[in-house]
Amino acid sequence: MVDRPRRGRRAEPGRAGGAALSAPALDVARARRETPGTAHVAHLDNAGAALPPAVVTEAVVGHLRLEARTGGYAAAAAAAGDVAATYAAVARLLGCAPEEIALTGSATAAWRAAFSGLRFRRGQRVLTGRSEYAGNLIALLQAAARTGVVVEVVDDDEHGQLDVADLRRRLDDDVALVAVTHVPTSGGLVNPVAEVGRLCREAGTLFLLDACQSVGQLPVDVAGIGCDFLTATGRKFLRAPRGTGFLYASPRTRHVEPLFPDLRSAELTGPDRYAVRDDARRFETWEHDVAGRIGLGVAVEHALGWGLPAIRDRVRDLAAGLRARLRERPGTAVHDRGLQRCGIVTFTVEGVPAADVRRALASAGVTTAVSAAASAPLDLGARGLPDVVRASVHYYNDEDDLGRLLAALPAPRPR
Amino acid sequence: MVDRPRRGRRAEPGRAGGAALSAPALDVARARRETPGTAHVAHLDNAGAALPPAVVTEAVVGHLRLEARTGGYAAAAAAAGDVAATYAAVARLLGCAPEEIALTGSATAAWRAAFSGLRFRRGQRVLTGRSEYAGNLIALLQAAARTGVVVEVVDDDEHGQLDVADLRRRLDDDVALVAVTHVPTSGGLVNPVAEVGRLCREAGTLFLLDACQSVGQLPVDVAGIGCDFLTATGRKFLRAPRGTGFLYASPRTRHVEPLFPDLRSAELTGPDRYAVRDDARRFETWEHDVAGRIGLGVAVEHALGWGLPAIRDRVRDLAAGLRARLRERPGTAVHDRGLQRCGIVTFTVEGVPAADVRRALASAGVTTAVSAAASAPLDLGARGLPDVVRASVHYYNDEDDLGRLLAALPAPRPR
Repeated sequence: MVDRPRRGRRAEPGRAGGAALSAPALDVARARRETPGTAHVAHLDNAGAALPPAVVTEAVVGHLRLEARTGGYAAAAAAAGDVAATYAAVARLLGCAPEEIALTGSATAAWRAAFSGLRFRRGQRVLTGRSEYAGNLIALLQAAARTGVVVEVVDDDEHGQLDVADLRRRLDDDVALVAVTHVPTSGGLVNPVAEVGRLCREAGTLFLLDACQSVGQLPVDVAGIGCDFLTATGRKFLRAPRGTGFLYASPRTRHVEPLFPDLRSAELTGPDRYAVRDDARRFETWEHDVAGRIGLGVAVEHALGWGLPAIRDRVRDLAAGLRARLRERPGTAVHDRGLQRCGIVTFTVEGVPAADVRRALASAGVTTAVSAAASAPLDLGARGLPDVVRASVHYYNDEDDLGRLLAALPAPRPR
Repeated sequence: MVDRPRRGRRAEPGRAGGAALSAPALDVARARRETPGTAHVAHLDNAGAALPPAVVTEAVVGHLRLEARTGGYAAAAAAAGDVAATYAAVARLLGCAPEEIALTGSATAAWRAAFSGLRFRRGQRVLTGRSEYAGNLIALLQAAARTGVVVEVVDDDEHGQLDVADLRRRLDDDVALVAVTHVPTSGGLVNPVAEVGRLCREAGTLFLLDACQSVGQLPVDVAGIGCDFLTATGRKFLRAPRGTGFLYASPRTRHVEPLFPDLRSAELTGPDRYAVRDDARRFETWEHDVAGRIGLGVAVEHALGWGLPAIRDRVRDLAAGLRARLRERPGTAVHDRGLQRCGIVTFTVEGVPAADVRRALASAGVTTAVSAAASAPLDLGARGLPDVVRASVHYYNDEDDLGRLLAALPAPRPR
């Protein structure tokens, strides 16, 4: 009576997604065949939410139909193996153990769950970077107002990346946390997080890494990076459903008890006592979107099947090609910085507000986004930039997608 | 190019779901035709997760397919009207304004979001009831350990409901919060929440109501109840997708700033300043499962279409019939208390552990649940009860479903 939802192609066992060898070229035609949306749009908003492969959508839909037929809890019990496979897949992606993974409804939920467990003393310091995600920054500023912890922003280096030397100077015993974003939402650089991790390990300081924009487009290996917490979302470069995210919590964080534990994170051991579980699932909630979690696992396995090094190479090369062609265009400025670049391309067209550029592209079936200066005051704001257009490529994009963007760009309007 | 997902039948405008008039009998045959799962299982776990009507599943699936075709953000923009309709539907269900509703990923997320904004002084008191949901209770106990607030449990009255007279005695200026569960997860009673609300309003005390098990099976009117916050889930009696929930936040709570605001709840107004929005959406997160939210709206509209008074009457009568037939059965004890009863029926079979009863029923295609004594120490535990079987009926259940349960019950094993 009960159909199991179809799972995606399994990845080859053995190699962690974090491995960074160069890889054979991707079969882009196959990637596009497996992605129904590529027939409809030139989707260059993979840093917003990527087009999912059909196997992901069908896995989610399959589970929803199972829930409709048998009820949500019976369906969850029938799909327990698929959900376990999601933990295993995410762990393989990050090079850690499944017990070190918590599944959440978003990267923000993951970040909050980890951050909620930290307690700050007045005068302690939290170090962050100019490219920290604005949502995280707001929470840090609130913590400063509530607890008296001081938020310090580490400088950028001459390439626009987080300045590791400045971080080293600032790191001392008063630093309670280093909170850094791997790839900013508003630019194409990749921060040197392994060097951040090494410094944090040496200093014995907790390192909370927001990998929302890197996981799925780059190999991300938590052991190599040396972070204590890593947060990410499913919907962006991992091509998973909306409403999915995860947290990696290293065994070093075992002392961290999240705020507001519920029946998933803890159990009542008496009328006035509770015990928090000691694996990463203490950061989860009891209720969750099971179909989404299954889809997340299929998406991660799909990425592992391609191989993260192959994805990284393809994405990097596509983005570099797009930047080069944008730069050749009169009145168009590219704003990405950093020694290592990724799939996010930010630009402006002289005299045309970013929102108008985005709209013109959308009318031509080309999906991009706008990164608002107001949401990146330490980055775009500090660089004196206005809102910028963000075109973010993925491995399934092709030259035709980029050509459509270039053809549909409005002409500059010099003043 | 873009298909809009189908919406469910709209409810008649005008009447709030909270109205409590008696109602004409429901067309159960139609309800079953509209619920594919009724052909497969006798689903008596509506307090766990109900069977959704087909319109809900198809609305969710429709949006997922739209996301696959056009990308998650373009799909969300195309469905903005449907999401707005969800706020409006939930507001109509509760008799409040759409701006007083926050959509969340679960009732727990809603409860946490509200609770996170409260600040307690050492020695202040929080009042709760014996039937408080265990997940909430754990969070209250943690708050006690961290802040020195004292958690006091209000007595039950002679009917097993929250004792309003005892609550009145305990309510004074030191009480920072009254946190009560409308319908316990482990029993069929309905707490007298309007009386709780009246006392809280008189005392000027914040009232946080967990309506997880009542919304969808009973008319719930926030103005009539007088709560400041109300939390609920989609998946239970509302028949909405898993991973959905909501929070009602009355304008009286405008001073409450949730912990960890993100870009949905707040905006950066400078490199080191932020402003929290002042409607209930300050309790939301930026990222969310759009498809689930659309499904929630369709489910609420579907419930409003039947009418909450009609649903309540049907559910109450079915449950009363089931209790009566269980009581007639030798060796079977029914454990529900309360003057007003609802669709949750709890019982034990002498000499047979609840888990074994549940398994035997499941083998016969009858879905029930177990309420664990360890998760209800102030209720089941205090009453000396072991784990109990929970059969929770909804309006689409019929006599045949109940008959199948009774036929498949294992025989008692007197010791």
